Amino acid sequence: MERIGSVEVAARVGQRVRVVGWLQSLRRLGAISFLVVRDGRGVVQAVADQARLAPLAGLEAESVIAVTGEVCAESQAPGGVELRDVALEVLAGATEPPPVLLGKKLANVALPALLDHAVVANRFPSRRAVFRIAAAAMRGFRAALDTEQFVEIQSPKLVEAATEGGANVFAVDYFGRPAYLAQSPQLYKQIMVGVFERVYEVGPVFRAEPHDTARHINQYTSLDVELGFVTDHFDVMAQLARVLRGMLAEIAATCAPELALLGARLPGLPETIPHLHFTEAVDRLAAPLGEAVRDEPDLSPAGERWLGQWAHEQHGSDWLFVTGYPMRKRPFYTHPDPERPAHSRSFDLLFRGTELVTGGQRLHRHADYLAALAARGMSPDPIAAYLEAFRHGMPPHGGFAIGLERFVMQLLDLPNIRLATLFPRDLARLSP
Amino acid sequence: MERIGSVEVAARVGQRVRVVGWLQSLRRLGAISFLVVRDGRGVVQAVADQARLAPLAGLEAESVIAVTGEVCAESQAPGGVELRDVALEVLAGATEPPPVLLGKKLANVALPALLDHAVVANRFPSRRAVFRIAAAAMRGFRAALDTEQFVEIQSPKLVEAATEGGANVFAVDYFGRPAYLAQSPQLYKQIMVGVFERVYEVGPVFRAEPHDTARHINQYTSLDVELGFVTDHFDVMAQLARVLRGMLAEIAATCAPELALLGARLPGLPETIPHLHFTEAVDRLAAPLGEAVRDEPDLSPAGERWLGQWAHEQHGSDWLFVTGYPMRKRPFYTHPDPERPAHSRSFDLLFRGTELVTGGQRLHRHADYLAALAARGMSPDPIAAYLEAFRHGMPPHGGFAIGLERFVMQLLDLPNIRLATLFPRDLARLSP
Repeated sequence: MERIGSVEVAARVGQRVRVVGWLQSLRRLGAISFLVVRDGRGVVQAVADQARLAPLAGLEAESVIAVTGEVCAESQAPGGVELRDVALEVLAGATEPPPVLLGKKLANVALPALLDHAVVANRFPSRRAVFRIAAAAMRGFRAALDTEQFVEIQSPKLVEAATEGGANVFAVDYFGRPAYLAQSPQLYKQIMVGVFERVYEVGPVFRAEPHDTARHINQYTSLDVELGFVTDHFDVMAQLARVLRGMLAEIAATCAPELALLGARLPGLPETIPHLHFTEAVDRLAAPLGEAVRDEPDLSPAGERWLGQWAHEQHGSDWLFVTGYPMRKRPFYTHPDPERPAHSRSFDLLFRGTELVTGGQRLHRHADYLAALAARGMSPDPIAAYLEAFRHGMPPHGGFAIGLERFVMQLLDLPNIRLATLFPRDLARLSP
Repeated sequence: MERIGSVEVAARVGQRVRVVGWLQSLRRLGAISFLVVRDGRGVVQAVADQARLAPLAGLEAESVIAVTGEVCAESQAPGGVELRDVALEVLAGATEPPPVLLGKKLANVALPALLDHAVVANRFPSRRAVFRIAAAAMRGFRAALDTEQFVEIQSPKLVEAATEGGANVFAVDYFGRPAYLAQSPQLYKQIMVGVFERVYEVGPVFRAEPHDTARHINQYTSLDVELGFVTDHFDVMAQLARVLRGMLAEIAATCAPELALLGARLPGLPETIPHLHFTEAVDRLAAPLGEAVRDEPDLSPAGERWLGQWAHEQHGSDWLFVTGYPMRKRPFYTHPDPERPAHSRSFDLLFRGTELVTGGQRLHRHADYLAALAARGMSPDPIAAYLEAFRHGMPPHGGFAIGLERFVMQLLDLPNIRLATLFPRDLARLSP
């Protein structure tokens, strides 16, 4: 009999069907047993008496089995149906109990066990839901940009010089020469604006930050965008808003069961995301958080939380752009605000009071790059190839980068970014 | 005036339009000059007398300019139109001549100059065409798999042990511990079959192969697929054929101007790609190439060429599957053919006589892995996390990997794989 997917079972009441997947749990209740079988998308329950279970003798949960049975309505069962009068067949038996019990609540598994045994623990329906939502976010990201004539690129991950100016790079032995893992595709995506005007990249970036926190991982997936012929950073912010709209729309359209399983509700995105200049933000923060905020070149986490609350109360928005961050904390390629040169044409996008995306307009004149590097005491030599682009005609441009794992973490309110990562890399963890 | 794209100009004969882009060339012919302006997608020609050129005084090719003018039919001009009665405006002037002249024929630029100055040379219309086709190939790849319920994953690129068994890995200093750059997502995509049944990944892979040839680069983009519940490698081959069909269809649908510019014609893909068992292939090769081919565990380039010719003559196909390669040259996870255990359930796909894709069915039983590793003298310890998946229920599965740059190179008949790569990494090259 042809196999059907677990999600198709509910529509087949009264028919005999064959479901194939993993034996997620087997619970005996007197003379009968309840099996839960999980396939790639969902789960289905089956009921069997002792005699029907014979093929499972000596086998453990996570065995790969086929269950053929009649679909019966049963309000207590997941999806409102269960299989009865079943025949079981073993496709690949597991003889050891799994390291984490996938039929139990995920919350009962400690984080280290989840990560150490991610190879199996990622099979948890609620873990899979997170990763399906991440995949939908990538699809939505690309679709939004494909419709606007952006070209996808793949940039080198092995580079001669640190992208962002120095620290926190992983060193690689490149045929006896020193090389580094790229911290971002920043320089390459800018170069490629000179080729295609508008580009994006989805790929791994590497940060050798020795921080052991719930928000740091050392490899993450960066959703990078760069576009030419902008007037200023507001064009970039408008592009980001369209991309976020596409990402949320794709998740909503394709991940309703996953959102329901996780008890997550997608945020609305207002037609126009409210924005606040950094100096205005600091003015507002000075009363609740103290006058010292005026001396800082950046917002503190507490400041971001306060502003998130403010945006929610004043604008009914989970989202808030803060623009015009002081130049002194921003990277060398940042475009200053010509009218307030100590401030930049950059922005952060806060989501529910936490920074989610950073972006802005970049410098585009060669002389401006030389001046910016000199002002920071940086040599132009290690990035001579990058600077060549600006010697030969570059339009005003800007862009942004969304950290996929951080996006998913914040969207689903996960307590640790590792939970938004299939196989996280951190200070302690190189495996699985 | 609102800017329009160069590709929209031909439809506006008789109207005044504004085109913005790079001054690709400026050619004086007596009293008048011909400008070619290139934007993200195409080029447009403009004609101006000396007085109109005043804004360009002191500027070189690749300056970013705006040209406003009347669209006139002109059969000699690219696209059959040119702009007349023009007004020029400089958005970002370039004061140095470009390192490669983009108005000239690409064929006149030596490969090292193209690669050294890729930052500018990638702006060549015929270089861009290659990269647009690569982007379309990625789109088609993902679209084909998205419609079949595959889930996109992002796997770690920093790993504890070499994926494929040992040599040719780049070493990384990971917070004082040794780590390696992943040679492929092979082990992770197999693990993820246990989670989602069907997965794919598009991402960089790293091979520290010290080969300086026209077919080797040290970072490339791998299009990886893995699917569960297969009967054997023929299911994997059928999946590959569907994916290739999707890639070719997307290129055909969206890259007609690029194919025309490159003078490339897409190959047909027969309803069923012909296939030949390795032993049959060798039987056929023995006469033309000598009996010694019988002692080899693999096909030589000459053998692949001969078979490509054979497939073309016998089946009218540019494509040929060779199945059943001897086990002794295939990696440890390769599934043997139960009926001929010295041969594998693996395949190569030859395109016009050159190997393009490798794939096959994998082992799925834990005991089979232990035996395969022992037979090769490999320790299971470095891949203990991977092997955990097989202790806890894995279905029969298989997959394949398409090297994006090799696909593009062979499709477009490029003489060097570096020409299918934005910024290639090779023995000598870490920049740009």
